[in-house]
Amino acid sequence: MMEETARRVRPPAPLRELARRALEEDAGRGDVTSELTVDEGARAAGRFVAREKLVVFGLEAARAVFHEADPEVRFSALVSEGEEVVAGTGLAVVEGSARSILAAERVALNLLMRLSGVATTTRRYVREVVGTGASVVDTRKTTPGMRRLEKAAVRAGGGVNHRFGLDDGILIKDNHVALAGGVGEAVRRARAGAPHLLKVEAEVEDLSMLEEALDAGADAVLLDNMSPEEVAEAVALARRRRPEVVVEVSGGVDLRSVRAYAEAGPDLISIGALTHSAPAADVSLEVVPC
Amino acid sequence: MMEETARRVRPPAPLRELARRALEEDAGRGDVTSELTVDEGARAAGRFVAREKLVVFGLEAARAVFHEADPEVRFSALVSEGEEVVAGTGLAVVEGSARSILAAERVALNLLMRLSGVATTTRRYVREVVGTGASVVDTRKTTPGMRRLEKAAVRAGGGVNHRFGLDDGILIKDNHVALAGGVGEAVRRARAGAPHLLKVEAEVEDLSMLEEALDAGADAVLLDNMSPEEVAEAVALARRRRPEVVVEVSGGVDLRSVRAYAEAGPDLISIGALTHSAPAADVSLEVVPC
Amino acid sequence: MMEETARRVRPPAPLRELARRALEEDAGRGDVTSELTVDEGARAAGRFVAREKLVVFGLEAARAVFHEADPEVRFSALVSEGEEVVAGTGLAVVEGSARSILAAERVALNLLMRLSGVATTTRRYVREVVGTGASVVDTRKTTPGMRRLEKAAVRAGGGVNHRFGLDDGILIKDNHVALAGGVGEAVRRARAGAPHLLKVEAEVEDLSMLEEALDAGADAVLLDNMSPEEVAEAVALARRRRPEVVVEVSGGVDLRSVRAYAEAGPDLISIGALTHSAPAADVSLEVVPC
Amino acid sequence: MMEETARRVRPPAPLRELARRALEEDAGRGDVTSELTVDEGARAAGRFVAREKLVVFGLEAARAVFHEADPEVRFSALVSEGEEVVAGTGLAVVEGSARSILAAERVALNLLMRLSGVATTTRRYVREVVGTGASVVDTRKTTPGMRRLEKAAVRAGGGVNHRFGLDDGILIKDNHVALAGGVGEAVRRARAGAPHLLKVEAEVEDLSMLEEALDAGADAVLLDNMSPEEVAEAVALARRRRPEVVVEVSGGVDLRSVRAYAEAGPDLISIGALTHSAPAADVSLEVVPC
Amino acid sequence: MMEETARRVRPPAPLRELARRALEEDAGRGDVTSELTVDEGARAAGRFVAREKLVVFGLEAARAVFHEADPEVRFSALVSEGEEVVAGTGLAVVEGSARSILAAERVALNLLMRLSGVATTTRRYVREVVGTGASVVDTRKTTPGMRRLEKAAVRAGGGVNHRFGLDDGILIKDNHVALAGGVGEAVRRARAGAPHLLKVEAEVEDLSMLEEALDAGADAVLLDNMSPEEVAEAVALARRRRPEVVVEVSGGVDLRSVRAYAEAGPDLISIGALTHSAPAADVSLEVVPC
Amino acid sequence: MMEETARRVRPPAPLRELARRALEEDAGRGDVTSELTVDEGARAAGRFVAREKLVVFGLEAARAVFHEADPEVRFSALVSEGEEVVAGTGLAVVEGSARSILAAERVALNLLMRLSGVATTTRRYVREVVGTGASVVDTRKTTPGMRRLEKAAVRAGGGVNHRFGLDDGILIKDNHVALAGGVGEAVRRARAGAPHLLKVEAEVEDLSMLEEALDAGADAVLLDNMSPEEVAEAVALARRRRPEVVVEVSGGVDLRSVRAYAEAGPDLISIGALTHSAPAADVSLEVVPC
Repeated sequence: MMEETARRVRPPAPLRELARRALEEDAGRGDVTSELTVDEGARAAGRFVAREKLVVFGLEAARAVFHEADPEVRFSALVSEGEEVVAGTGLAVVEGSARSILAAERVALNLLMRLSGVATTTRRYVREVVGTGASVVDTRKTTPGMRRLEKAAVRAGGGVNHRFGLDDGILIKDNHVALAGGVGEAVRRARAGAPHLLKVEAEVEDLSMLEEALDAGADAVLLDNMSPEEVAEAVALARRRRPEVVVEVSGGVDLRSVRAYAEAGPDLISIGALTHSAPAADVSLEVVPC
Repeated sequence: MMEETARRVRPPAPLRELARRALEEDAGRGDVTSELTVDEGARAAGRFVAREKLVVFGLEAARAVFHEADPEVRFSALVSEGEEVVAGTGLAVVEGSARSILAAERVALNLLMRLSGVATTTRRYVREVVGTGASVVDTRKTTPGMRRLEKAAVRAGGGVNHRFGLDDGILIKDNHVALAGGVGEAVRRARAGAPHLLKVEAEVEDLSMLEEALDAGADAVLLDNMSPEEVAEAVALARRRRPEVVVEVSGGVDLRSVRAYAEAGPDLISIGALTHSAPAADVSLEVVPC
Repeated sequence: MMEETARRVRPPAPLRELARRALEEDAGRGDVTSELTVDEGARAAGRFVAREKLVVFGLEAARAVFHEADPEVRFSALVSEGEEVVAGTGLAVVEGSARSILAAERVALNLLMRLSGVATTTRRYVREVVGTGASVVDTRKTTPGMRRLEKAAVRAGGGVNHRFGLDDGILIKDNHVALAGGVGEAVRRARAGAPHLLKVEAEVEDLSMLEEALDAGADAVLLDNMSPEEVAEAVALARRRRPEVVVEVSGGVDLRSVRAYAEAGPDLISIGALTHSAPAADVSLEVVPC
Repeated sequence: MMEETARRVRPPAPLRELARRALEEDAGRGDVTSELTVDEGARAAGRFVAREKLVVFGLEAARAVFHEADPEVRFSALVSEGEEVVAGTGLAVVEGSARSILAAERVALNLLMRLSGVATTTRRYVREVVGTGASVVDTRKTTPGMRRLEKAAVRAGGGVNHRFGLDDGILIKDNHVALAGGVGEAVRRARAGAPHLLKVEAEVEDLSMLEEALDAGADAVLLDNMSPEEVAEAVALARRRRPEVVVEVSGGVDLRSVRAYAEAGPDLISIGALTHSAPAADVSLEVVPC
Repeated sequence: MMEETARRVRPPAPLRELARRALEEDAGRGDVTSELTVDEGARAAGRFVAREKLVVFGLEAARAVFHEADPEVRFSALVSEGEEVVAGTGLAVVEGSARSILAAERVALNLLMRLSGVATTTRRYVREVVGTGASVVDTRKTTPGMRRLEKAAVRAGGGVNHRFGLDDGILIKDNHVALAGGVGEAVRRARAGAPHLLKVEAEVEDLSMLEEALDAGADAVLLDNMSPEEVAEAVALARRRRPEVVVEVSGGVDLRSVRAYAEAGPDLISIGALTHSAPAADVSLEVVPC
Repeated sequence: MMEETARRVRPPAPLRELARRALEEDAGRGDVTSELTVDEGARAAGRFVAREKLVVFGLEAARAVFHEADPEVRFSALVSEGEEVVAGTGLAVVEGSARSILAAERVALNLLMRLSGVATTTRRYVREVVGTGASVVDTRKTTPGMRRLEKAAVRAGGGVNHRFGLDDGILIKDNHVALAGGVGEAVRRARAGAPHLLKVEAEVEDLSMLEEALDAGADAVLLDNMSPEEVAEAVALARRRRPEVVVEVSGGVDLRSVRAYAEAGPDLISIGALTHSAPAADVSLEVVPC
C-alpha cells in the first residue's frame, strides 16, 4: 500500500539542501541527453527495485531529491524505512515529468544505495549480538556532509548512535591523554569544567589506565583495542569499582569477532565500518512511459 | 623529504568549502573535550600513518581541512598523491596548536581514508587489466558532494574518468531508449540536436541494439550486462562497421571477471564499485606534545 | 489569449535566484516612494507594451521577478517567447498589489529589455543567412551572471548555442596554441587526453594552420579573422581532407558582411555582438489602479 | 609605469563576490582545453590591448577576477580608470600560471569590455554638453547584478549618478501619480511622511503638472518626454516659482539631441542608454609563454 | 477574534531568514529533550500570555519562527502589533505538532520579549512628549541583525525612524567634523557632492557651531548634549535664520528629562536607549496537549 | 601595554561572519556622509573610552568588525576582556583609513556596549553570591544571532554557562511534563533513550514533583519559582535522597533576592535577565586625524 499523502509534504530543510547540492553537482548546466532524446512534455513512471536482499533506508532522502528536482513529481514509498526486503522487491514508485525523473534518478539512487548499505551492514552486526545486552554503536567515521543521514541509517539497521559531533559529549581519547599528561589528569580536568549536563567518557588501553580513569571519576570508559578476554576482565573490574559506569568497546571488531566481544559484557560496541566501509546496496530504477 | 613550501598556499576554493562544511558538521558548537583537557596555548605534532598497504589519495583534502580549521597549522605531506605505500608508512605530519589539530583530526582522517580507499580499489582493477588495452573507468555512482574528489582518486589509482555530470557528454541509457521509443530513434534525435563539440554514446544490451545504434550514427557504445564472450562478439561487429567507434563495457564486472572482459577487446570498462563500495583505507593520526 | 495557468507554477530555481538578487540590488531597504504615495492595500493592473518592433524574450524572467517580489501578483503573458511583434503590442499583463508591482517594475523591465534586445539582434543575423546552410552561433562574450538567459535569448532569436562554459567542449584558441607550441601539438595533446565524449575544435588563422590542425585530428575548426574568400578556400580544403569536419567562422562579421561569410560554406558563424553589444529593446509598463 | 604594489591588496568583497560568481558560471567543472593543452606548471604573460579608441573602466574588476581565480597571478594596470586611450594602447599586463590566466581571461574581458563601453558612451554624451551647466545622469536601467559597477563606469566617463535604488531617494513617477490620483496629491503624501533627510522629486509631463508639483512642494522635478523648447519653458517657470528647485530632463534624448536639451537650462539630463545600450568596447588579451 | 487567515501566508523573506538562523542557533543538531519525552505524533496547543503590562510587538516575527520551524503549525494572533495590553492578556495561540511548538518556543519568545520591550519603552517616551510637537526618534544603536525589526518596534510604540543606515541620509557627526576641519567645511563638502535627493544634517555642540552649520547650508541640525535651556536658545536661533530647517536633539535624554527637552521646541528627539537598553517585556508560553 | 601583535591574526570565522552581516546591515550601499566629507586617503586614530564603570567584553568582536571593514585598520586593546574599569578608561585604540574607521564605528560600538552590558550585569550578580557556593548561570534567553557572544560575556562577568542549545543537554521543562503526563514519566523516558554521554535534568515546582523526579532518576533538578525558604527545604530533601544530584534555581531572582537564594544552598542560580535585560554599557569612540 502506498503512502500517497506523503507526496505533498515538503521534506525538512537539511534534506532539501543536501538534495539540492547533489542535484547541482550531478546536473551541472543540465541533462543534455534527456533534453535531446525525451520530449519536454513526456510523462513517465519509475519503480525502484532491490536487486539483492537489503535493509532499506533513504526513501525520505530519495523523495527529497525528486521534490527538489521537480515538486510535481509524485513519489510513493512501497515499504518502510528500516524494513528488510528480498531481491526483486519494489521499494518505491515515482510518476511525473519524464525529464525530471531522469534528471533526479542517479542522485536518488546514489543516496538510497549508500544509506541502505549502511542499514544493511548495521543489521548484520546487530543480529550477531542478539541476546547479549550489548548495543552496536556508530562512530564519527562518517561521510563528510552525510553524518545525520548515515546515523539515521544506523538506527534503521538497529544500531545506536554515539556522539553526533565534538560538542554533544565529552570523550577523552588517546591524543587528549597524550596532551594532558595522563588519563587521570585529563578526566579530572574534564570533570572540573564540564557543563553540568554532560558526562565524561575516557578511552583506556589497559587495566591500569582503566583504574586511573575510574579513580578520577569517569562516567563511562571506552576499552580500545583489547581482546575479548581483556574486555571481560576490564568489565569486571569496572563494575566492581563503579556499578553504574558505562562500558564501551572499540577497535578490531568485525563480523566474526563481534559476538565474542558482546559476550564479554560491555554496554556498547562501536564500529567505524558501519559507516566508512559499508558496500552500497544494489538498487535500480526502471522507467516506462505513461 | 617534506613539501614544506606547500604549507603557505591557500587550497582551492571548492576544497576549502568542502572542508568548512565537514568541520562544521563535526564540530557543532565546538570541541568540548579538547577545551576542557588541553591547554589553549599547547602545541602538538601529529603523524598520519598507513595501517595497511594502500594507495594514498586525499592529502590535499586533508591539508585543506587543517588550513580551514586553523591557517597556522603546518601540514607537510611525506608521500605523493597516488603513491602506493606499505603498512606503517608515514603519510604526512602536522604541527601547530594542539586544539586545532584535535578539532580537525577526524574530518581529515575521514577524507583521507575514504579517498585512499577509492584509489586503492581502483589500483586493484587497473592491475588486473594491464596489457589488454582496456581502461578502467568510473561512473556517476559517487558520494553526494564528493564527486570531484572521488574522480580524482580514481585517476590517482590509475583509472580514467567518464562524464562528470549530465552536461558534459551525451549518454543514452536504457531509460532514454524506453522513453524515446528505440535506441535508433534516440541516437538520431541526439545527433540532430547535439552541440557540435559533444559525441553521442548509446547503451545497448544485445547485438541487434548495437547495430541499430551504429546505423543511427552513435560515436560510442556501452555494452551493458553482457558476458565476456558476448562482448568479444560485439566488439568485432562494432569494429567492422565503424573502426573509430569507442566501445565501453559495464555491468557485472568485479575483480574476478574484469580480466576476461578486458581481453574481449573494449576500450573502456566502467565500474560503479570503484566509488560506491570501496572500503575505507586504514589510516591513523598519532599526536604528541611539542 | 492569456496563459493564466502559468501563474501558479513556481519558476525554476536559477531564475528565482537571479530575480531575488536583482530585486535586492534595486530595493535596498525598500521602496520609499511607493510606501509614501501608494496605499498599502491598493491594487493595480499593469501592461507591458513594446515601443518598437522586437523579438520578445524574457517573459519567464519577468514572471519570476514578480513571483519573487510577491507570489500573489498574477502575471500573464500575451505573446510567446521568441515571437516577433510590432510597436504597440501588449506583451504581458500583471495584476495584484500596487506596491508589489511598482517594486518589481524596473527589474522586470531591465531583464525583458536586455533579453529581447539579444533575441532581436540575433533574429536580424539569422534573416541574413537564410538559405545558406550556415547557422548563427553565440559565444562566451555574455554578461556575467546572465549566460544561461542570454543563450536562451539567442535560441529564441533563431541562433544556435556554442559552449556554455570551459567544461563542455574543447576549443583550442590562439593563446592555447601559443602556449602549447603550435596548433598541431595542441590538437594532439587534446585528442590524447580528451574524455571520450568530447570533440576537439581548433582555431586557425590561415590555410597552413588549418592543414596542421586537420592532420593532427581536429574534429572541428574555427576560421578566425579571414575574409569570405579565404573562408571559401578553407572550407573547400577542409571538406576535401575530412568530409565530416565541422567548420566555424568568427571575427569581423557584422550585419553587412554576414551573408558573404555564410555563402562561403561554413557550418557555423559565431558572433560576440549578439550578446555583448545588442542594444536594449524598448518596452514600457503602464500601470492603472484596479 | 605599472602600479605593481596594487597586486597585493585584496579587492573589496562585492567585487570578489561578483568575480567568483562569474568565474563559476564560465568554468563549470573546469577548463578542459587548458588542462589538456597547457602544462600544469607553465607560466605566461598577457597584455590587455584596446582595439579601438575607448574610455577605460573595469581594471579593478579585471584585477579582482584574476585575484579570485588565482591570488598568485600578478595584475598591473598600465593606465588609470577613466583614461581615454587610442587603439593599440596596452591597458594592463598579467603574469602567472598559464592555466590560471586562461581560466580567467574571458570573464575579465567580458567585464572590461562592457564597463569600458559604458564609460565610453557616457564620455560621448558628456562632451556634447560641455559648457552648458547640465550634468549627464544615469538611471536604474542597469544590468541585474552590476549596478554599482555600471554606475562607477558612468562616473569614470564623466557622468553623475542618480539614485542607486528604491531606498535612497523619493522619485514620484507616472505610475505613482496614476495610483495616488494626481501629482499634487502624491507630492503632498511624500512630503508628509518622508524621512527628514530625503528630498522629494516628481516626474511631470507638461506645464500644468509642473505647477501642481511645485505647488505641492516638490524639491526637484523630472521633465519627461518634452521637446527642448518645452523644457526651456518649463525651466523658466520652475526657476521663477522656486529658484532652488532641481530640474531634471529625461526621455527621447540621444547624442544628436542632447546638446539642445542641455542648452534649455536643466540641471540634469538622465539617459538610460548609458547603461542599457552601450556597445561593448573592443579589448583583447594577448598571451605568451614566459 | 483570531486572524486565522493569516496562517497561510508565507512571512516575508527577511523575517523567514532571521527565524531560520535563530532556530538553527538554538537547535544545533536537534531538540534532544522533546525527542525523548514527547511522542512524535503528539499535538499541542499553546498560548502566549503577557506577564506584565506591555506594548506588543513581534507577533509577525513569532509567527515566522513557527512557520519556519514547521509550516503546519497554526499561529493566530489575539491582539494587534502595537496594542497595549495588561498582565494576563493572551497575545496569540499556536496549535500543531507538539515537538514543533517546543522547538520554536524559546526563539519565538526571545523575539517577542525583546521587541515588545522596545515598543513598550518607546511608548513611555512618546507619552511624555504628548502635545509638544516633538517626535521621539530612534538611532542606529540597534542590535546587530535586528535593525529593521527594532525600528518597526519603535514605530509600533509611536516613535519615528531616523536613518536606517549609512546610505540613506547625510548626517555629519563630531568625528566627521574633526576630520574635515570644521563643521562649516564639512557641510559645504557634503552639499557640493550630495546626490540631488538627499538632505544634509549636521551635529553641533554649541551656538557658534550651529551658526556655522546653518551658514554653510545645512538642511537639518542635531543639537548634541545641550541642556533644555540651550536647546531652546538654539531652536530660536535656527528658526530665525532658516525657518524650514529641521532641528533634532540628542544626548542625555531620559524619561525624566525628555519633557523639558520637548518643550524647548525641537522637531525630533533621538534616544539610543529605545533600542540599546530596553528591558525585555515578560511573556510566557503555556502549552497543553490537544 | 598594547597587544599590537594581535592585529595581524584573522578573527575566527563566526565572528567575521557576524561582523560582516552587521556591517552590511548598517552600511547598505555605503557611507555617503564620510565619502562626501572625509578625503579618501585620510588617516585617523580613534580611542574607545568607557563613559561609566563597567566590565569590558566585546573587544575581540570589535576587532573583528574593523578587520572585516578593512584588514589594514590596526586595532589594539588597552585592557583585557573581563576587566572592570572606571569611567574615562581607554579600552582600545584604532588606527588606519579614516573612512574605514567611521564605517565600522557604530557596529563596533553596538557590539561592545551590549556585550559589556551583559558582562557588567553578570558581575553584579556574581558579587552578590560570593562565598555561598552557588554559581550564577545564564539561560537560552539570548539575542537571536548572538548567543555565543552573550554566553562568553556571561563567563567574562564571572558567570557559568547553561546549555548552548536544545542539543547539548536534556532539560525537561513544564511543557514537557504537561505533554509527557508527569515529571516522573518524562524523566523515565529521557533516561531510557538518552545518549550515554548526556545527563537528565528536570524542572520541578514543588517538593512532590521533586521527589517524583528524583525517584525516576534525574541527574539534576531545576527548582522553578520557589521562595528561598522552599529552596532550602528542597535542597535538603534532594541531598538526602541523592547526594550527587545537581540543584539549580530559577524564577523570580533579582539583584535584591539573589543572595537569599544563594544561601539556600543550590549549586546553580540561572537568571534570564543577564542577557535579555542588561542595559548597554556606555562607551564612545573619539576620532582624530593623524
